[in-house]
Amino acid sequence: MSEDSVVLIGRKPTMNYVLATTLPLAEGKKVVLKARGRAITKAVDVVEVVRRRFVQNLQVEKISIGTEEGRTGNDGRTRNVSTIEIVVSQPKTSKK
Amino acid sequence: MSEDSVVLIGRKPTMNYVLATTLPLAEGKKVVLKARGRAITKAVDVVEVVRRRFVQNLQVEKISIGTEEGRTGNDGRTRNVSTIEIVVSQPKTSKK
Repeated sequence: MSEDSVVLIGRKPTMNYVLATTLPLAEGKKVVLKARGRAITKAVDVVEVVRRRFVQNLQVEKISIGTEEGRTGNDGRTRNVSTIEIVVSQPKTSKK
Repeated sequence: MSEDSVVLIGRKPTMNYVLATTLPLAEGKKVVLKARGRAITKAVDVVEVVRRRFVQNLQVEKISIGTEEGRTGNDGRTRNVSTIEIVVSQPKTSKK
């Protein structure tokens, strides 16, 4: 049994997260990419780069979206931020 | 039979797309939200605002991601852009 690996998408360059996603996949783990706000676009970019350049048989198992509540901005008002969670895995194949 | 309604997410304010999504839902149609690049985050925002403020029983039927190829930038190089497609519907209920 292998535990899932979680990658939190933030402000670093896309390729950092591509690497952080590809390595656990190679070990047979599922990877859960989590992002909120503007990083949501980057999370999708990361999955697409992994699939196109590193793990051709990547499987996107699940994509879910949500809202994170209760973040307070500088003006003291409560703000909501959208979130995304993408679960990917690499099916085991018999290739060399 | 009702046709699906397609909403292309672009540069307009989020609430424009919230309205464009809510109206066909009220008519019993499925709505397909499509976005690419930075608008991906806005597409998720739109779905979340619709669900939280207008259509409490909103159902997110499917979320798929992809890459759109072959867009040429100012420097003449081919660039890829990530895309997202979110299908939502409002289940029919017996409420007044």
